[in-house]
Amino acid sequence: MKTVLERQSPINAALQEVNAAFDAEVRSDLRFVAALLDQVRSYRGKLLRPRLLLLTAEAVGRIRREHIVLGAVVEMVHMATLVHDDVLDEADVRRRSRSVNRTVGNEGAVLLGDYLISHAYHLCSSLGSTRASRRIAAVTNTVCEGELMQIARRGDLALSEADYLEIIRRKTAALTSVCCELGAETAGADQSAVENMTAFGMDLGVAFQIVDDVLDLTATENETGKSVGRDADMGKLTLPMIRFLQGANEGDRERFRAALSSDHGERAARVGSLLNGTGAIEYAMEAARSYIVSATSHLSNLADGWAREELFTTADFVIRRRQ
Amino acid sequence: MKTVLERQSPINAALQEVNAAFDAEVRSDLRFVAALLDQVRSYRGKLLRPRLLLLTAEAVGRIRREHIVLGAVVEMVHMATLVHDDVLDEADVRRRSRSVNRTVGNEGAVLLGDYLISHAYHLCSSLGSTRASRRIAAVTNTVCEGELMQIARRGDLALSEADYLEIIRRKTAALTSVCCELGAETAGADQSAVENMTAFGMDLGVAFQIVDDVLDLTATENETGKSVGRDADMGKLTLPMIRFLQGANEGDRERFRAALSSDHGERAARVGSLLNGTGAIEYAMEAARSYIVSATSHLSNLADGWAREELFTTADFVIRRRQ
Repeated sequence: MKTVLERQSPINAALQEVNAAFDAEVRSDLRFVAALLDQVRSYRGKLLRPRLLLLTAEAVGRIRREHIVLGAVVEMVHMATLVHDDVLDEADVRRRSRSVNRTVGNEGAVLLGDYLISHAYHLCSSLGSTRASRRIAAVTNTVCEGELMQIARRGDLALSEADYLEIIRRKTAALTSVCCELGAETAGADQSAVENMTAFGMDLGVAFQIVDDVLDLTATENETGKSVGRDADMGKLTLPMIRFLQGANEGDRERFRAALSSDHGERAARVGSLLNGTGAIEYAMEAARSYIVSATSHLSNLADGWAREELFTTADFVIRRRQ
Repeated sequence: MKTVLERQSPINAALQEVNAAFDAEVRSDLRFVAALLDQVRSYRGKLLRPRLLLLTAEAVGRIRREHIVLGAVVEMVHMATLVHDDVLDEADVRRRSRSVNRTVGNEGAVLLGDYLISHAYHLCSSLGSTRASRRIAAVTNTVCEGELMQIARRGDLALSEADYLEIIRRKTAALTSVCCELGAETAGADQSAVENMTAFGMDLGVAFQIVDDVLDLTATENETGKSVGRDADMGKLTLPMIRFLQGANEGDRERFRAALSSDHGERAARVGSLLNGTGAIEYAMEAARSYIVSATSHLSNLADGWAREELFTTADFVIRRRQ
């Protein structure tokens, strides 16, 4: 079934250009590298980040060549994090194709991620000024910090909702936010419009990650096209779990601790059944919805037009998606 | 014992500035990140790459602030490759401290490497133009390709000397070469001087890697301060092995194949004893020496002075080092 993001839209032509810029940058004459890149191509999904960048540009001005380039850059950054996440999490399945680390080992996956990030910076520094490179690199610093924080707090039942939000702002929302910031700024928007779009991207990213974490507990691999239950498997506490623990008595906490240290592969199911009926999932979805409301509130000053419409549609997709 | 690179030299003050620029860039307020960075600091060794960059600058003009920044950038890139190499090779020991992957796991090591490379690009894009960022990113593309080629040819007894040289030019010499190129270019050297220094860095890098590969077979962990015997362990054919195979009869080849697929940890010793007395090690060292002769031939147009002297000393160190 096509998602709302896959139907006819004026943005599709620009997204095709992003794909072409992506392919032109990472092409390799080396057979082994080219084969790996073919595999990575299958990772390419809904192009959420380039989409945000282009829609923001169009909503405040118009899409220029730099936006196409930056769209390819942010997608490369995103794909590099997916590839390296697969090393981290030993995920078996990603977007319905075998994950890179399962076919070429951790070594190949590390290097392929490095290769993508290197090409992202290479392409970004083809632009006239260092401004975008500087912002993108600052964001990748932040993303790494978010991931490192997450590792440091693995299995820590004392992780608060505030800590969780801090982690996902860094590891996910920083990138969606900079997409909107650069989209607006590069289109020549004024300071206040850039700030609004930056805030939109930040709220949307937080909502996106909350929903992602909910889907990891509630969706099937077939729906999401990637491994599910990985957070519990890796001891990563997400919002539904944090909510559950807030209202838990000592017995519940003990059962949660036991679920989290049960056999690999059983953890998610056991955590899921503990949470069932407690309202923890619903609480997390409500939180995501309120971030989407906040996100769209930053769109109120935009002029009417298809780009503004599509930003609303994208926000709606984030909360409704099952993949 | 101090190496020739550690004695008093006019370059030391500038290298201190590089260290300070490095520390200022990667400082983190996050406790877990800061602890990891402390560990990385112990990786910092002879600062070969910043040294080449600074000496080249001084040899053709004078060291400017940009050189200090670029020195920190290339050291970050180099350290990122060390950290990710540790993931790849599961090395237990690196520069006499526990390797990152043994203390924080593969996940932490992948992220820490990502963090270093991200900061390298962040710092590099603080410079006025995109020129250096573009070159550095092009080189990191090349380094990844070299590493990927190496993985693809693991255990392949048909690897030729030319293939080997192609791999090490990419994975090692591309970075030392760009150090010399950017050192000269940023100092305002003319085209021909930049080309000479680029060629110097390329030859020196090739020699460096050949010697590194010889030391992996012949030195002790205590001498090098890092794991040895890793190449054989990982099925990476290096110049001495390639030379051995060139002159080998079918029996020798069979014994080599058996050594390479023997128990992990025994491989290097078995490969080493096969090579012993065949002249293969000596052949590789002779090749390294000839690259150093070629490297220094590119220095002939430099004006006399301490920087030129130190470039010769550095070239000499590359061939004589035991670490």
